[in-house]
Amino acid sequence: MEKIKMILDCDPGHDDAVAIMLAAKSPKIDLLGITVVTGNQTLEKTERNARNIVQCLEVDVPVYAGCGQPMIRQKMVAGDIHGESGLDGPVFEPLTKELEKEHAVNFIIRTLMESDGDITMVTTGPMTNLAMAIRMEPKIVEKIKEIVLMGGSYTNGNVTPAAEFNIIADADAAYVCFTCGRPITMVGLDVTRKVLCYPEIVARMDKIGNRASKLFVDLMGHFCKAQKEVFGWEGGPLHDPVTVAYLIDPTVITTKPMHTTIDIRSTESYGRTNCDFFGYQQLPPTANVAVEIDAAKFWDIVEEGLKLYN
Amino acid sequence: MEKIKMILDCDPGHDDAVAIMLAAKSPKIDLLGITVVTGNQTLEKTERNARNIVQCLEVDVPVYAGCGQPMIRQKMVAGDIHGESGLDGPVFEPLTKELEKEHAVNFIIRTLMESDGDITMVTTGPMTNLAMAIRMEPKIVEKIKEIVLMGGSYTNGNVTPAAEFNIIADADAAYVCFTCGRPITMVGLDVTRKVLCYPEIVARMDKIGNRASKLFVDLMGHFCKAQKEVFGWEGGPLHDPVTVAYLIDPTVITTKPMHTTIDIRSTESYGRTNCDFFGYQQLPPTANVAVEIDAAKFWDIVEEGLKLYN
Amino acid sequence: MEKIKMILDCDPGHDDAVAIMLAAKSPKIDLLGITVVTGNQTLEKTERNARNIVQCLEVDVPVYAGCGQPMIRQKMVAGDIHGESGLDGPVFEPLTKELEKEHAVNFIIRTLMESDGDITMVTTGPMTNLAMAIRMEPKIVEKIKEIVLMGGSYTNGNVTPAAEFNIIADADAAYVCFTCGRPITMVGLDVTRKVLCYPEIVARMDKIGNRASKLFVDLMGHFCKAQKEVFGWEGGPLHDPVTVAYLIDPTVITTKPMHTTIDIRSTESYGRTNCDFFGYQQLPPTANVAVEIDAAKFWDIVEEGLKLYN
Amino acid sequence: MEKIKMILDCDPGHDDAVAIMLAAKSPKIDLLGITVVTGNQTLEKTERNARNIVQCLEVDVPVYAGCGQPMIRQKMVAGDIHGESGLDGPVFEPLTKELEKEHAVNFIIRTLMESDGDITMVTTGPMTNLAMAIRMEPKIVEKIKEIVLMGGSYTNGNVTPAAEFNIIADADAAYVCFTCGRPITMVGLDVTRKVLCYPEIVARMDKIGNRASKLFVDLMGHFCKAQKEVFGWEGGPLHDPVTVAYLIDPTVITTKPMHTTIDIRSTESYGRTNCDFFGYQQLPPTANVAVEIDAAKFWDIVEEGLKLYN
Repeated sequence: MEKIKMILDCDPGHDDAVAIMLAAKSPKIDLLGITVVTGNQTLEKTERNARNIVQCLEVDVPVYAGCGQPMIRQKMVAGDIHGESGLDGPVFEPLTKELEKEHAVNFIIRTLMESDGDITMVTTGPMTNLAMAIRMEPKIVEKIKEIVLMGGSYTNGNVTPAAEFNIIADADAAYVCFTCGRPITMVGLDVTRKVLCYPEIVARMDKIGNRASKLFVDLMGHFCKAQKEVFGWEGGPLHDPVTVAYLIDPTVITTKPMHTTIDIRSTESYGRTNCDFFGYQQLPPTANVAVEIDAAKFWDIVEEGLKLYN
Repeated sequence: MEKIKMILDCDPGHDDAVAIMLAAKSPKIDLLGITVVTGNQTLEKTERNARNIVQCLEVDVPVYAGCGQPMIRQKMVAGDIHGESGLDGPVFEPLTKELEKEHAVNFIIRTLMESDGDITMVTTGPMTNLAMAIRMEPKIVEKIKEIVLMGGSYTNGNVTPAAEFNIIADADAAYVCFTCGRPITMVGLDVTRKVLCYPEIVARMDKIGNRASKLFVDLMGHFCKAQKEVFGWEGGPLHDPVTVAYLIDPTVITTKPMHTTIDIRSTESYGRTNCDFFGYQQLPPTANVAVEIDAAKFWDIVEEGLKLYN
Repeated sequence: MEKIKMILDCDPGHDDAVAIMLAAKSPKIDLLGITVVTGNQTLEKTERNARNIVQCLEVDVPVYAGCGQPMIRQKMVAGDIHGESGLDGPVFEPLTKELEKEHAVNFIIRTLMESDGDITMVTTGPMTNLAMAIRMEPKIVEKIKEIVLMGGSYTNGNVTPAAEFNIIADADAAYVCFTCGRPITMVGLDVTRKVLCYPEIVARMDKIGNRASKLFVDLMGHFCKAQKEVFGWEGGPLHDPVTVAYLIDPTVITTKPMHTTIDIRSTESYGRTNCDFFGYQQLPPTANVAVEIDAAKFWDIVEEGLKLYN
Repeated sequence: MEKIKMILDCDPGHDDAVAIMLAAKSPKIDLLGITVVTGNQTLEKTERNARNIVQCLEVDVPVYAGCGQPMIRQKMVAGDIHGESGLDGPVFEPLTKELEKEHAVNFIIRTLMESDGDITMVTTGPMTNLAMAIRMEPKIVEKIKEIVLMGGSYTNGNVTPAAEFNIIADADAAYVCFTCGRPITMVGLDVTRKVLCYPEIVARMDKIGNRASKLFVDLMGHFCKAQKEVFGWEGGPLHDPVTVAYLIDPTVITTKPMHTTIDIRSTESYGRTNCDFFGYQQLPPTANVAVEIDAAKFWDIVEEGLKLYN
């Protein structure tokens, strides 16, 4: 079986870290590079976090820094959940993993242009890097096999009632990606809110007892505490890794094709993913939207993924 | 026990008709008047439908015609669901019930100003009449005991992914009502989608065998057929009567106070009720939003309501 | 020659006062009533100001109070220019002129419906009353001969760079009026900024020496001082009376038909009158927009108008 | 005297061509490169046009192709004015001038980062390239000496009543540039509409009798004809070269500091440059906006500029 070639664009972030864990060692995935964007924290912090994760996991994946600003709007970060560093919790060794010199946007353009059109773009942060690449070099569009993103919601958001964080943080970028014409799978809060990392999940992963499981446990310690303090939830929703889990085993989620647009011209509803769940508008579908998740299967995938490390 | 004084502002409409049935005879409700608005069909049709229902039920309630246009936007109707007449299905006797001469907006203003502040405003159509009254005579605001509306959704709409019919048909009016400062209970699609009028419900009501049950059966014949043809649903959602059922027995729904705003300045999300279900915005609640419904209890209320007729 | 039947809808306001002066005595105009709206100050003040002006001028025109709120948006007033009372400057006799009992909106509806379609609606404040009347009784639209308004600008505004006061104070109402389908003449800042009431104008009117000229001089004392303090202008722009002057002598302004829309869904440009001066959009004209004014002729009309009083 | 280091970002375009003429030979300007963007025509055409102009003028300036799409919105071009090629009129020799390999956005970033902060960015098309560079590498912002753009209007636009072509074609990019914090001089339609290239101007330039004047005459032949056919104007407004003329001799225009914002969230007024000409908003100025032009001096600058060629 051929591996899925993949670029992971992220803003680590605790749940991004788990997405990296799953992607970097999976026998089904060929992780070509990790590109980093401002999101859960500023770029300086998120790219540093990405390198710390890669170094801690002892995997060999290049890390590229991308955009430190959303395309148009002002920057927003999620310090309340991810802490001052954007990855509060684990204590890392001194950082030796170096950042690649190439800008993430140029890396994405170059890699896609040199490819056979077989690369899947996975985004688990604001979609700025991919959108900037699309606008700088429109020819890359036809080289994208599929876009799989964590973001949005067809019910309600987690920053405003209308919008989810990854989308509202750069809705213009999301608009560019959703209208580029390539297959797009949206893994939104509608399903990721159903994979809450309860204490028993943490205990289960802890038993694995390797470098990956230790990192997982350290991450979840902070993450779940923050979710409880800020939102009163007993377990943190593990949003981002659902994208990678879906590539490893597509049956983990059920998707439904929906006509989907991104509201970028509203003030109040800026960043809403208007997915026509019921098909009221009778317009052609433009995205595959995740509507159900098999939570048990998801945690199995996570467990198997962590076990691949020593 | 004192009766709840109530003005029912509606746009019949099949489900409005059932709301009228429940309100006009309930021993708990004193229905002061029925005011009619453009909505499910044009005003000429909805006011005629209201009179036909009142005449058919042999109840003595005055009917007032209100606004034939939304406050700002262009008119939209829901002919696909409610048919050419707005109340397709039943065949009525020749209409003798007369329309009151007073404009619905003036009736609302006069009645509220003469009251002791003990009148509940129930709206089951676009909120145009009430909003116009509030803007024409702001002093009525403090005279409104409570506003109970069928409309909106904190998840997704039924006209666009963002908006529900009663709100999108005149979101500006909804904005005026939601910001007027009085207690407001929003019964939205989130609960009304859960009271689907399946064939067994129709059969159950049919057994009552009086004028009201006959009207109910005739109405549901068309309504459920249209819902199936347009949306593929086996039973039509009986949106509007949930408001009246809630006044008869408040335990039929569970509400949650939420900060709620109406998006009126967007193009794409015009008419979205942005209800902060999770409290992410940490703003004070501005509406009680229905989040759960006891469907069995609801159908019991409907059945009991129909039985009050001969 | 038949007199022009006219309802003057205003928010006095210093320049509104001069509009009343010109309209109430002109042999060319039959002033059916003065309807008042919130604008330069709150309704309580503007309706009182209207009655003070009518009483001071000893003319017999009924005054009707209208809406105390814009249709949708929050109220804004122009206290910096018109002062705490909305008509700072003159000292009036104790007020005996009574307010009519009928609401201005109902007066407009009734008067238009009873007419032969020969009434011109002149608005010199926010267009709330007329728009509310149009929405309450759409049948009045075909009864309106013409709408002449002071408001808007095809260049730049005087509240924001996009919007002029009368429009931004209730752009939704302006939208309703501009889209109602009747002939509409827009007298905007583009011309009214060119009739500045310099000291020599005040001196010229002062020489007339009657009750009207005295009121004019008292009004301009405050108005021109405020314009200088707030904007640094040597003379106050006499916006509102240009509408009445135009009805008395249409040659005082030059108009050009332009496709014109009102921006009501923007945040930043809310209330801009988008007039296609150059015809770039190649759309049919929807308003006659004043583009030039004969200032000398305007002051002659004002002088002649004031001379009609004793 | 030190030369002004300058990058000219353009979308030739007839008036862009004249801007290039003035910039490439001026003893006061060091033209580091020409970067090209989609605008008057598609990128494939505008970059080709830029190379044709450079080759025809026999100047040695590198040409870089930039973005073929606006940042967010769909592409629009101005074929009605600039013709099918974007530069209809002149017949060029076979094209040998080569396009640089580096992307214009990367060239802008690299050149600014390597500079001493002494480079002026001149844009005469949509501001996409500069905005993309700012978002890809925010560190360049402090390296920009000044931005001088042709675009916008504080009165009215030339695509919609609200917006001018260069801004509306990518208002989001303009928003990024106007909010970046560096000095910005906006040369808008308010002045460029006053330098109309009448036949006598063409005749005057024709007398110079060199390669530049010949190109000018060939360009204006088409340009003025199109302006007449489309807008009925006797002379084409020479928008773009006013920016370069201003750098050669700042006294050619008068500027006024104004608080200026770009409307990017409106539908109808998208792309309006809301410049507070009168200072009504009492906010700090954010742009120097051209308010007057010395047309005679402008044509002298053009004539002197053309004479520098053989």
